[in-house]
Amino acid sequence: MKKTIFTLSLFVLLIACNQQTQTGEIKVTNIKELNDAIKNSKAGDQIVLANGTWKNVEIKFRGKGTKNKPIILKAETAGKVSIEGKSYLKFGGEYLVAEGLYFKNGYSPSNAVVDFKISHKDTLDEIANNCKLTNCVIEDFNKPKRDKSDLWVQFWGRHNELSNCYIAGKTNRGPTVRVSIAGIESINNYHQIVNNHFGPRPVKGGPSGETIQLGDSYTSMSPSHTMVANNLFEECNGEVEVISSKTNFNVFKNNVFYKSEGSLVTRHGNYATIDGNYFIGDGVNENYGGIRIINTGHWVTNNYFFNLKGKSFRSPLAVMNGIPKSPLNRYNQVTDVVVAYNTYLNCSSPWQFGVGTNIAQADVLPKSEIRSARAIRTTVANNIVYNEKGLDAIVVENDKADGVVFKSNIVDNKGVKFKDFNNGLIGASLELKKLSDNIVLPVSIPNDVEGYDGFDFNTIKTDLFGNLRQDTKGIGATVDEITASPNILDKSKYGASWYSNEIEDKEPTTYIVSTTDELRAKISEADDFDIIKLNPGNYNLDSSLVINKKININSDDKSNTTIYYTGAENTPLFELHPKGFLWLNKISLKGNMSNYAFASLKENMSSHFRLTVSNSKISDFNYVLKVYKESFAERITFQNTNILNCLNGLELSEETNDKGDYNTEYLMIHNCTFLNVSKNVIDYYRGGYDESTIGGNLELYNSTFAKCGAKEENGILINTRGIINVDISNNTFMDNPVKLVALLWGAKNNSHSNNQISNSGEIKVEENLKLKLMY
Amino acid sequence: MKKTIFTLSLFVLLIACNQQTQTGEIKVTNIKELNDAIKNSKAGDQIVLANGTWKNVEIKFRGKGTKNKPIILKAETAGKVSIEGKSYLKFGGEYLVAEGLYFKNGYSPSNAVVDFKISHKDTLDEIANNCKLTNCVIEDFNKPKRDKSDLWVQFWGRHNELSNCYIAGKTNRGPTVRVSIAGIESINNYHQIVNNHFGPRPVKGGPSGETIQLGDSYTSMSPSHTMVANNLFEECNGEVEVISSKTNFNVFKNNVFYKSEGSLVTRHGNYATIDGNYFIGDGVNENYGGIRIINTGHWVTNNYFFNLKGKSFRSPLAVMNGIPKSPLNRYNQVTDVVVAYNTYLNCSSPWQFGVGTNIAQADVLPKSEIRSARAIRTTVANNIVYNEKGLDAIVVENDKADGVVFKSNIVDNKGVKFKDFNNGLIGASLELKKLSDNIVLPVSIPNDVEGYDGFDFNTIKTDLFGNLRQDTKGIGATVDEITASPNILDKSKYGASWYSNEIEDKEPTTYIVSTTDELRAKISEADDFDIIKLNPGNYNLDSSLVINKKININSDDKSNTTIYYTGAENTPLFELHPKGFLWLNKISLKGNMSNYAFASLKENMSSHFRLTVSNSKISDFNYVLKVYKESFAERITFQNTNILNCLNGLELSEETNDKGDYNTEYLMIHNCTFLNVSKNVIDYYRGGYDESTIGGNLELYNSTFAKCGAKEENGILINTRGIINVDISNNTFMDNPVKLVALLWGAKNNSHSNNQISNSGEIKVEENLKLKLMY
Repeated sequence: MKKTIFTLSLFVLLIACNQQTQTGEIKVTNIKELNDAIKNSKAGDQIVLANGTWKNVEIKFRGKGTKNKPIILKAETAGKVSIEGKSYLKFGGEYLVAEGLYFKNGYSPSNAVVDFKISHKDTLDEIANNCKLTNCVIEDFNKPKRDKSDLWVQFWGRHNELSNCYIAGKTNRGPTVRVSIAGIESINNYHQIVNNHFGPRPVKGGPSGETIQLGDSYTSMSPSHTMVANNLFEECNGEVEVISSKTNFNVFKNNVFYKSEGSLVTRHGNYATIDGNYFIGDGVNENYGGIRIINTGHWVTNNYFFNLKGKSFRSPLAVMNGIPKSPLNRYNQVTDVVVAYNTYLNCSSPWQFGVGTNIAQADVLPKSEIRSARAIRTTVANNIVYNEKGLDAIVVENDKADGVVFKSNIVDNKGVKFKDFNNGLIGASLELKKLSDNIVLPVSIPNDVEGYDGFDFNTIKTDLFGNLRQDTKGIGATVDEITASPNILDKSKYGASWYSNEIEDKEPTTYIVSTTDELRAKISEADDFDIIKLNPGNYNLDSSLVINKKININSDDKSNTTIYYTGAENTPLFELHPKGFLWLNKISLKGNMSNYAFASLKENMSSHFRLTVSNSKISDFNYVLKVYKESFAERITFQNTNILNCLNGLELSEETNDKGDYNTEYLMIHNCTFLNVSKNVIDYYRGGYDESTIGGNLELYNSTFAKCGAKEENGILINTRGIINVDISNNTFMDNPVKLVALLWGAKNNSHSNNQISNSGEIKVEENLKLKLMY
Repeated sequence: MKKTIFTLSLFVLLIACNQQTQTGEIKVTNIKELNDAIKNSKAGDQIVLANGTWKNVEIKFRGKGTKNKPIILKAETAGKVSIEGKSYLKFGGEYLVAEGLYFKNGYSPSNAVVDFKISHKDTLDEIANNCKLTNCVIEDFNKPKRDKSDLWVQFWGRHNELSNCYIAGKTNRGPTVRVSIAGIESINNYHQIVNNHFGPRPVKGGPSGETIQLGDSYTSMSPSHTMVANNLFEECNGEVEVISSKTNFNVFKNNVFYKSEGSLVTRHGNYATIDGNYFIGDGVNENYGGIRIINTGHWVTNNYFFNLKGKSFRSPLAVMNGIPKSPLNRYNQVTDVVVAYNTYLNCSSPWQFGVGTNIAQADVLPKSEIRSARAIRTTVANNIVYNEKGLDAIVVENDKADGVVFKSNIVDNKGVKFKDFNNGLIGASLELKKLSDNIVLPVSIPNDVEGYDGFDFNTIKTDLFGNLRQDTKGIGATVDEITASPNILDKSKYGASWYSNEIEDKEPTTYIVSTTDELRAKISEADDFDIIKLNPGNYNLDSSLVINKKININSDDKSNTTIYYTGAENTPLFELHPKGFLWLNKISLKGNMSNYAFASLKENMSSHFRLTVSNSKISDFNYVLKVYKESFAERITFQNTNILNCLNGLELSEETNDKGDYNTEYLMIHNCTFLNVSKNVIDYYRGGYDESTIGGNLELYNSTFAKCGAKEENGILINTRGIINVDISNNTFMDNPVKLVALLWGAKNNSHSNNQISNSGEIKVEENLKLKLMY
């Protein structure tokens, strides 16, 4: 009896304990259950979403957890709950955690996919504090229209966290992640953005394609204290700024920037700490950036720059000129910046100062746009620069670096002389030690170079690898004790535990087709990278072929393989959909003078397309290529191809709202012939003056234009207005009834050489093109 | 024996201790000894300056004390060491204290009187940290020329202190105290400016007359963390800003602003804390200000505003409109400001929003000058407003206050209706409790008004008097427990222990004179405020009378008391020197048509003059009054006086560098007659567009002008270009051969009424005067 009572008591006790400490685990299978669960949730609860697809779910995750008992919203199995369709997740409250979710095949109907605030019109917003999104993936969750702006993760409040997530594929307008700090509720936020894998963000073709933006110019006076650490940024190519820091006291630590076509930019705001990051290039691509400095009081320490070929805005260290008394949204002068204990290995132009100086444009720009204020009170000390092949200049002075103190920087320039700034750059011969493919460290630092002891340098206590700097603090990013490779590109260290963006190589399938029906069927059936091979013959199509995957269409001989397109007027033979990549080789295409050879969708181009046409012949179309507004291709290539008897050529000029957007990053025309194309022979447009957009690229080489442009209203054969990089070389222009072959923009990277022009107007260069200011 | 040994041991021990802790006291009697002592000083030393006058001493006080053993430089007797002539004191090093010094009868040959830095051209500056100036006085230590700028105390470095000093009388250009934070050595400085008595700083007559300036617009993004606490600001009238906060995170606590013609202004920078200060007016003077807000994130709490009549820029709370995307040196938008728990007693216009809106001037000003951005995300809560006489508006909206949330503010407006902003202002009937003349507190707060619990309001833990706010935090500056008077105007609580600026009343001496020699002798002999009385008769002078003190010269009857001045051409009968105040009554003055009646010094007007002429007659001068460049009078008055047959009248127009300066604050012409004055009848000029300078005042009442202006080149009789406040009323203008009587500035406070004009041109009002922008 006694024992029974004891047992019973124990049982009651256990139940009591259970009720008190057991976290309620509530499994939900649909949005109604989820909403109910959220509504009834209390600290310590775990709401479990059943595996499967959750479509069109607008999740408002509100509640009040505690530090020790957060409320958790999680996938039954991490990665097996996909959030699709028109969906979002908003946090409002305290100590809420969401984990294991997979956002794909959809987009947010709101301003953000994940938002740390639930907004209300008439009552106070519910702002999240101490909340977390972790172990999730957001992939290709693009709004259908590129111009429609949103964010994928928007921070508000304080002490929120984005950790161990994989986020990739954003193509529409707007930074991928933004920390918003408008409002005192969101200052001094100490948010954590850590251990994430930011996967490829394709070139956006215009501004507002940052991967992370911390604040904006209007809040650039506010203390943010956001921590961005231990993230991998892989191919984050959206625009020139991978990270745009626009508030005060942000910290960027131990991140890896891998083949990312942009820079970490202290765009607005001050007192950033940029410590121990890796910027890894490939020795070729000039678009991979480093750190671009604007404003006051930043410390750039212990960073490692490898094989970067960027220059100017994209230099490993680009220190900009400011605008005197700058407007709030423009460029403050650089002051009080410290660049110390960094290592630059085989970079083309390690340090540039006076970047963005535009004194020469004083005539065409208002005074409030002229960047003439050089960096002052700035220290560059104790860095190492190693160049396998000596550079003419270690420091490039776009404007004088007379406000910069150089001290105790060691440079191995392989004997090539360089300006030493009062012995602030000291030549030396260094050995290299290779830790891994991307981590090669100069060693054997000469003992007789004493490190400079700048103001507050005693606060720099560790090196790139976190090793303690001893009393003699050393020079360069690492103290002279080589450790094992940090394995910075081991992707398992970043992002969601259940997801990898590494795809297995797959052997492409080749489908051989002989009829129009087969052609259409196999295109539909094929997987990415498969090949459709056309047997010789004529293929007659009366409606478009949809290209919504990566596909290769070719034949052995264009002269006997022709696709005749008789589809309706203004419809394309090849309709390029989002993610449609088409490689076309050795095919003849022939239209009916009213339809198109290639076109993007008129709308809902939620992702990029790509087009490569080689060794082909295109004739009798209204348009060869029509790219509609808000469509974007990273690359459009025509090579060894004849284009003839078309009303219009390549038309990429619909981004006329002059916000800096354009329709393709690279337009490559090599070894082509254009004969009898009446207008828009090449029409490629970018509008809006924005000094930091550096895109739009036209390469026009070795091609021939004859009898083209007869109906061109503006009288220009090759229209490239606003495109930053244009090279027109080794072409032949004959008998084109136009006023100008091209009008180039001298102040930008426009050039022409070795063209044969007869009876075709001329190529004119205008130094300063007047454009609408974007700001 | 044992005892002896013990005693001996104790003695040895004591000596040992003594050597270790005894501070070396080094007495010095001249600059060489002082320099040697400084050179040899070590932590713990006291360098004692012998009592007496130290003239032309440039003291570079460098050394390295420690927290427990500072190096002290002190007067033998506090206040008995005066530093005179061309002298300064500069600190360079650590833990240095200077105390007991009296700076007077001189000026700094450098940029500062006391500087917390010793600058060098080619080597690093020696910056002071943890240094202190205490128990000192700086009085009238003005550079001879008003335009020559300097500072009396300039902070650099970190953790320096200005405490228990009395500082008064600055008239030349430049703030009295400035915290400079250019350079990372000086950010996060946590300087202390505490327990000082800032005595009268006269109106400067133009900008750059602040008493304290914290940083500048160029460093306005920097964290300063300067503490300004427990100071008395008495008649700090230099300009519209008594304190100009231009950096971040400054704290203003428990200061008393007493009859100071200016405001505490958050001019640049953000996140100021303005807590528990007293702003005391006299119920009459409209120039006494309060707190003027620009920028982001300031908290205005627990302050007390008494009897202030200021409006617009000078309102107790003036919240300005910003300029969208403002240039760095102009006006950022107000955002995220909290105004809570303040008490306003009998103020004319407690709260003004949209101050400085100038949308109407969009035609004459560049876009970058238009203040159209209203305050946003701003909270005004839990304040008390009590008006003995009800006001029409508690909140004046110069522009809409639609970005401001008003909550739980209690207003006793004596039944007069007011706009209540969605019940954010709640009418009530309050009783008053008088603690002292200037501290009268509304009590009997209605219980049913619940205090608003705004974001982070829980951080407001105490009230004006430092009493803890309990859970129910109350409303208004004090929790409802009346304590004894805080004796805020007990001057012994502020400034140097050995100095008081209270002067005993002294009965003036009257000297009766009958001859020219007596007149000259007695003027020389007289003390301030003495009276020289002229017996009837003629006084013939052939050289100037120097007025360098406060003196009253009169007779019983101007008709039989005449001073004939036969001095050289372009010399004045009365030569007004710095600190020369002249009251002239019932005297006739007669010149030789080539000399002047009154003039300031041509240069070295290191302090102000004043002139009042009553019931007199002035004739046959080249100039009646000639005020030279860099001379300034707070007040110039002519009343009941006839001015006739002069080539020039009142000439105050030499401040032509257009930096906002002018020559007198008040020019008062009442009941005068001007007859046959050829030009510059009244010529009063201020140049440069500077929206916050609100000075220059002309009152021209009840006067007659006849046959004047015949030779006036610009065709304007009364020239007031650039003067902000002009009133021309009840005058008669007849037969003056000019084009205009006056050209008034409509957008400013210029007015005219009830003038009789015949055969004299007209009075024209131009709404927007084009002026050179000062910024």
